[in-house]
Amino acid sequence: MRKIIFLAVAVLTLGLYSCAQQTKTKDQKTADGIIRVETPERPAGQKDVIALRCAPLDTVRVGFIGLGMRGPGAVERFTYIPGTSIKALCDLLPERVAESQKILEKRNLPKAAEYSGEEGWKQLCEREDIDLVYIVTPWQLHVEMAVYAMEHGKHVAVEVPAAMNLEECWKLVNTAEKTRLHCMMLENCVYDFFELTTLNMAQQGLFGDILHVEGAYIHNLEEFWPYYQGNWRLDFNEKHKGDVYATHGMGPACQLLNIHRGNRMTYLVAMESKALTGPKEVKKISNRESTDFQNGDHTMTMIQTATGQTMHIQHDVMNPRPYSRMYQLTGTEGFANKYPVEGYTFRSAEKIEGVPDHENLSMHSFVPEDVKNALMEQYKHPIHKELEEMAKKVGGHGGMDFIMDYRLVYCLRNGLPLDQDVYDAAEWSCLGELTRISIENNSMPVEVPDFTRGSWQKLKSYHHYMAGE
Amino acid sequence: MRKIIFLAVAVLTLGLYSCAQQTKTKDQKTADGIIRVETPERPAGQKDVIALRCAPLDTVRVGFIGLGMRGPGAVERFTYIPGTSIKALCDLLPERVAESQKILEKRNLPKAAEYSGEEGWKQLCEREDIDLVYIVTPWQLHVEMAVYAMEHGKHVAVEVPAAMNLEECWKLVNTAEKTRLHCMMLENCVYDFFELTTLNMAQQGLFGDILHVEGAYIHNLEEFWPYYQGNWRLDFNEKHKGDVYATHGMGPACQLLNIHRGNRMTYLVAMESKALTGPKEVKKISNRESTDFQNGDHTMTMIQTATGQTMHIQHDVMNPRPYSRMYQLTGTEGFANKYPVEGYTFRSAEKIEGVPDHENLSMHSFVPEDVKNALMEQYKHPIHKELEEMAKKVGGHGGMDFIMDYRLVYCLRNGLPLDQDVYDAAEWSCLGELTRISIENNSMPVEVPDFTRGSWQKLKSYHHYMAGE
Repeated sequence: MRKIIFLAVAVLTLGLYSCAQQTKTKDQKTADGIIRVETPERPAGQKDVIALRCAPLDTVRVGFIGLGMRGPGAVERFTYIPGTSIKALCDLLPERVAESQKILEKRNLPKAAEYSGEEGWKQLCEREDIDLVYIVTPWQLHVEMAVYAMEHGKHVAVEVPAAMNLEECWKLVNTAEKTRLHCMMLENCVYDFFELTTLNMAQQGLFGDILHVEGAYIHNLEEFWPYYQGNWRLDFNEKHKGDVYATHGMGPACQLLNIHRGNRMTYLVAMESKALTGPKEVKKISNRESTDFQNGDHTMTMIQTATGQTMHIQHDVMNPRPYSRMYQLTGTEGFANKYPVEGYTFRSAEKIEGVPDHENLSMHSFVPEDVKNALMEQYKHPIHKELEEMAKKVGGHGGMDFIMDYRLVYCLRNGLPLDQDVYDAAEWSCLGELTRISIENNSMPVEVPDFTRGSWQKLKSYHHYMAGE
Repeated sequence: MRKIIFLAVAVLTLGLYSCAQQTKTKDQKTADGIIRVETPERPAGQKDVIALRCAPLDTVRVGFIGLGMRGPGAVERFTYIPGTSIKALCDLLPERVAESQKILEKRNLPKAAEYSGEEGWKQLCEREDIDLVYIVTPWQLHVEMAVYAMEHGKHVAVEVPAAMNLEECWKLVNTAEKTRLHCMMLENCVYDFFELTTLNMAQQGLFGDILHVEGAYIHNLEEFWPYYQGNWRLDFNEKHKGDVYATHGMGPACQLLNIHRGNRMTYLVAMESKALTGPKEVKKISNRESTDFQNGDHTMTMIQTATGQTMHIQHDVMNPRPYSRMYQLTGTEGFANKYPVEGYTFRSAEKIEGVPDHENLSMHSFVPEDVKNALMEQYKHPIHKELEEMAKKVGGHGGMDFIMDYRLVYCLRNGLPLDQDVYDAAEWSCLGELTRISIENNSMPVEVPDFTRGSWQKLKSYHHYMAGE
């Protein structure tokens, strides 16, 4: 068996680690060359929320905070989901709230209560007639709002990334554990057709033992930067080093590897290119020189797991590349790849006669298109089977947004554990700060904390719960 | 500007680093978290061989050592190259030598001298009538043979990887510097059509500033293992951790980044998956349990350069995946990708009207096929223009082997620096041991030595020399 840690090298206290103006993480030490981050003790009387079940809700009464880019789409999707009631709408700007009311009107639904301004979201969270607060605001507001909502007895759904740093990750975990409420990050990519089908194939053993998975957010945002309220997104990249938007890659990868369901990430290393495009975008949008742009134009991360697999994650929102989430899986018996072309390869059953031609490099190619299509039909995930047609009508990222919202409501109505729990939110979001620490220390390995604080082996594999379970 | 090294952390002496049974590298220390490897002092009176020029040869008289898998193809190619004379053939097995004689016979060329057995290669190197020794033997024999050939006044061409560890890399460098002879590793992939065309486009500035490059050797060798004489290749993987076959990925990547021509690799980190397929192959071929198979089924490396770019290299010879060298380039103005589909993307000149649709993920796609073809025609490398048709007739990896041999002979005949020098051989081969060190130390960063010992900025960029320069 592979030993994760080989050498007991001298312990090096990184006492002078001091460039962390972005974080309050302290007490970093290295043992075995790995930079350790603090894992706060679980508050007394608090237990984990692994496979948390709450009382079933007949109707899920929801309030939305944030009606800018992604919010209105969520409101519209909820008008199509049975067993929901949209009670309140909130945005910093009242005109956006008015716009979203029109969605309800068009669908012949009752008007929702309206909130706006700096404190509107608090009033929404304080309402007595809401079960779920759905947060679609700029990243930096996520945790404050999620915590406040849970503190006021509401389940929370929060856009990606759920948290900006380790301290925020722990706030979400601690609040969810204390309040025994659901806190689901709205990672939609895990519901995309290829990803969910491939997960099903993986769980049925088609790829053998999984060895390596990849994911990414590669999306040239040059046309989008000006449309983020107050330029918050480019501004965040300017001020923060690391993979600040890792969850679209992490979600599908972690589900394939059963992270905190029998497996866990142990350490990571990250590396970035210099920042050349970033400062140019600042100049273009804000007409000023950005002399200390933090986020490298291209960032990479490699992650080791407790059961000996590897993950590879990339981030590039700057450069002219085709959109890619780099979804890829390598197993002992098969291989799956999504970008730039979807394909599957399997270990050949038939043996080659005689000496193989070592100049023939196309011996192991993707299965033909018709075989792929037949496989994807055969292994269509039960969730897709149920929802595919409905989702395509409602739209939103090829249906995956709708499936995500539908599953959230379905699990809440049936009192089931959600598909994504608060530990997923923390694990997929923590890359932002952990990669920054690695990059700022010449790519030294950095521990990935166990957000379950010891409970990562309670479950044996990743699972979508269905009514009756 | 990006600071490569941020923190002056305490120096940790890795005195107890001791698992290096495969190497004699010693004196490893870390500063700034980076594991240092020894750079031996340049022997007195010895100078670098950057842009080495030797006396032009009217006819290149060549002897071949190793006539197993790749050797006979090389012999055949040389029969098509003007200004060459095949003087001697050598293999451990005399019957292989006889087979290769038939190639000469078929081409109506004079019989070559024959050598075989354990010591035959030495006699070949000792001949007076040979200018170039062309080595196509199992990896572990490369350096001993290359050094012996240079010591006997011969230029050397040696298959990939040229060297198995740092000590061997330094042996090649020191011998080439001492003897002032060429030592070229036979890395053919740098001559492949997409790679060389893209290099030309990059050198013409089409991709802007290059930020990130990728390369790999992903080739399921399950059908090939039994055909390596004495099972040496699987055996090497069983005994050695790390990216033991990195040069096909490294070559094109390093040329794009002008490595030791104004730029250099500073440090790397590596990570591997567990080994599951490896031991199964041993069982299949040798019918024994492999209880300590060293090479992980999937290995990844990230490399930082002195001028702020990143490289990503992968190795997988075990799993059922389509062949891929993962060739990829990300620049500020453009992107190139070879596997599984060849494509180019450029920053759009035309601006989008109004608010862009954030659900439209195909805004930045590859240029259409006809545009790609026109670009590749326009930027066809001068070397390809000259040789394309001839190469296609001769064959061998789509022509790249022929171009490689032709360029080697062309440069020797014109007294030009070769396309690949001994520092390339060392830099592209050193990944084997450096990645092992990183993997065995929980992916800690490991210094990449400067094999030029201070001369990496003498040249300003990578260049193919042409007659008259």
